[in-house]
Amino acid sequence: MSEIRIDDLPIRDDLRGRSPYGAPQLDVPVALNTNENPYPPSERLAEALSRAVAATAAGLNRYPDRDATRLREGLAAYLGHGLGMRDVWAANGSNEVLQQILQAFGGPGRTAMGFEPSYSMHPIIAGVTGTGWSPRQRGAGFGIDADAAVDAITREQPDIVFLTSPNNPTGTALPPAVVERVAAAAPGMVVVDEAYAEFRREGTPSALSLLPDHPRLIVTRTMSKAFALAGARVGYLAAHPAVVDALQLVRLPYHLSAVTQAVAATALDFTDELLGAVKHLREERDSLVAWLRGRGHTVADSDANFVLFGEFADRSATWRGLLDHGVLIREVGPPGWLRVTVGTPEEMAAFRAALTRVTAGGGEP
Amino acid sequence: MSEIRIDDLPIRDDLRGRSPYGAPQLDVPVALNTNENPYPPSERLAEALSRAVAATAAGLNRYPDRDATRLREGLAAYLGHGLGMRDVWAANGSNEVLQQILQAFGGPGRTAMGFEPSYSMHPIIAGVTGTGWSPRQRGAGFGIDADAAVDAITREQPDIVFLTSPNNPTGTALPPAVVERVAAAAPGMVVVDEAYAEFRREGTPSALSLLPDHPRLIVTRTMSKAFALAGARVGYLAAHPAVVDALQLVRLPYHLSAVTQAVAATALDFTDELLGAVKHLREERDSLVAWLRGRGHTVADSDANFVLFGEFADRSATWRGLLDHGVLIREVGPPGWLRVTVGTPEEMAAFRAALTRVTAGGGEP
Repeated sequence: MSEIRIDDLPIRDDLRGRSPYGAPQLDVPVALNTNENPYPPSERLAEALSRAVAATAAGLNRYPDRDATRLREGLAAYLGHGLGMRDVWAANGSNEVLQQILQAFGGPGRTAMGFEPSYSMHPIIAGVTGTGWSPRQRGAGFGIDADAAVDAITREQPDIVFLTSPNNPTGTALPPAVVERVAAAAPGMVVVDEAYAEFRREGTPSALSLLPDHPRLIVTRTMSKAFALAGARVGYLAAHPAVVDALQLVRLPYHLSAVTQAVAATALDFTDELLGAVKHLREERDSLVAWLRGRGHTVADSDANFVLFGEFADRSATWRGLLDHGVLIREVGPPGWLRVTVGTPEEMAAFRAALTRVTAGGGEP
Repeated sequence: MSEIRIDDLPIRDDLRGRSPYGAPQLDVPVALNTNENPYPPSERLAEALSRAVAATAAGLNRYPDRDATRLREGLAAYLGHGLGMRDVWAANGSNEVLQQILQAFGGPGRTAMGFEPSYSMHPIIAGVTGTGWSPRQRGAGFGIDADAAVDAITREQPDIVFLTSPNNPTGTALPPAVVERVAAAAPGMVVVDEAYAEFRREGTPSALSLLPDHPRLIVTRTMSKAFALAGARVGYLAAHPAVVDALQLVRLPYHLSAVTQAVAATALDFTDELLGAVKHLREERDSLVAWLRGRGHTVADSDANFVLFGEFADRSATWRGLLDHGVLIREVGPPGWLRVTVGTPEEMAAFRAALTRVTAGGGEP
């Protein structure tokens, strides 16, 4: 029966012809394409993780704590801002957090609005949950114009508004005043996706400080980036306890394994160590921005662990050229731009060398 | 803002007034309420799990293998029936597998049919995905009458039909002939939920053998029960590769953590040991059925690791009486019936002693 294909099956009509989401998982010397943290867990943390899982193993025949109490307490303490366990919710990656938000507050007949270019999973997960997607475009500098956003929200009355700060793939952080104007205008939920929050430059505020006055505001975070745990899949959010209660209506029971809970709680014990590495990455990021600008590239201001730069007449050629030199970056964002993740000093040296060669004599930029 | 409640938020209308799903997580001496395997991983397995996670820890800063290749190969080899990696898909518990099936093949304007009493998550997850739920009732003995099922399917043309074998909460296995008649009549997908497959009595076939001739058939399984890994959250399915491809359109990218993949693959290396414990549980189950019948109870034939028994004029009183003796079972299934999970010999002795006391002189059964 090998001749049967997806389109021979009774899949949902809106899925027909689609391709699965996913960055290429290529085996290259220098992978700077998925905004991973280049620093693996330290030996000390790896040992603590192993011990935590060993302690958990003896109880794995039982279902996990459905409420992930210890982990949520730890995440709330990490976030600060007076947050407690009831203000925090966690799931398998921020993708699952976003899906639960869309399942509870979106769905058929409802609409979510986002400001593009932005995280491409927002419209994809909206689609999977049957939520309509209403995109607006970011302006010059990849910021969001508050007046234009309020105008669009007032006219369209979206059930969910996605803001992203710092934004992927541009690296752009949002001033709290923009979030506040959007929250005041939005009739429904406002989600600020802060996956890259820990990489903000000094003085760039988080939307967490706005939570007390905005019960329909949700701030999502992840342990994939700053905590260097992309492989462990832990995303979370902070919001009013009623929002957390609402998500209980759609979360799959026991969605978060005992192992995941133990791994994430253990990593939180190493916050200082992990945020030390984040500091190095921020410095590396700032150097990269300066170097790219020094080479004549246009570079978006970045508060994240990646940099969007351009503009190339044929960005695919540049992307392929870099790959030929063993450096994999991401062809994403507006036409003419490329996104490079900030890696170790050695990886960035390899990137700079490769880009220098690829652009030499090509007239670009 | 503590006065704000769920109903003050713009949640989906169909969620209003609902309560989150979940068995009580009470701390009792004898927990026989969630069909967990009572045998924790052996010391040898616990050590192997710890080692596997230690080996994984050093790469946790990277995203996991999105395709879970090694795990799916292991699951396919375990299932046998000539299945390979491309015929198998895994997710965070069979709940997530079921959600992905409903997201790909159900959704708004589509309907799923089930035969109740059955696993209560089928209609709940259908609801979360916007899929209509069309229930039919099982007849005497909790089986499914093939003629009646074919008739209902022919009239209603459901997009997905859920069969459950062995069925939860009744323990009833389905003859393959019933599955085949349903598959022949169904216009859409047919899901056979075999979460408890390994507990079938000798000679009771699995629907896996029907896969080669039925490209719209899906058999779901879990490692929670026979593999004693409820805490690790690993569910999976076997189906035609085109079905697996279709699920890629709705799965969240990197949904299965590197740790989960390592834990599950390691447990598969201990299949013989774990299935040895399953054999003991089957024997304990058969003894329990005989004992309950000897005490005059009505008992459903069970091919699972639990037993549905009755009938009680006031089952809640019996349930509470058992809890007063430190034994937690589940008040679920048709009115008058109770479900007890098969535990260790010591736990079953405690259950028998408690039930004897609770029913003594009460005129029940």
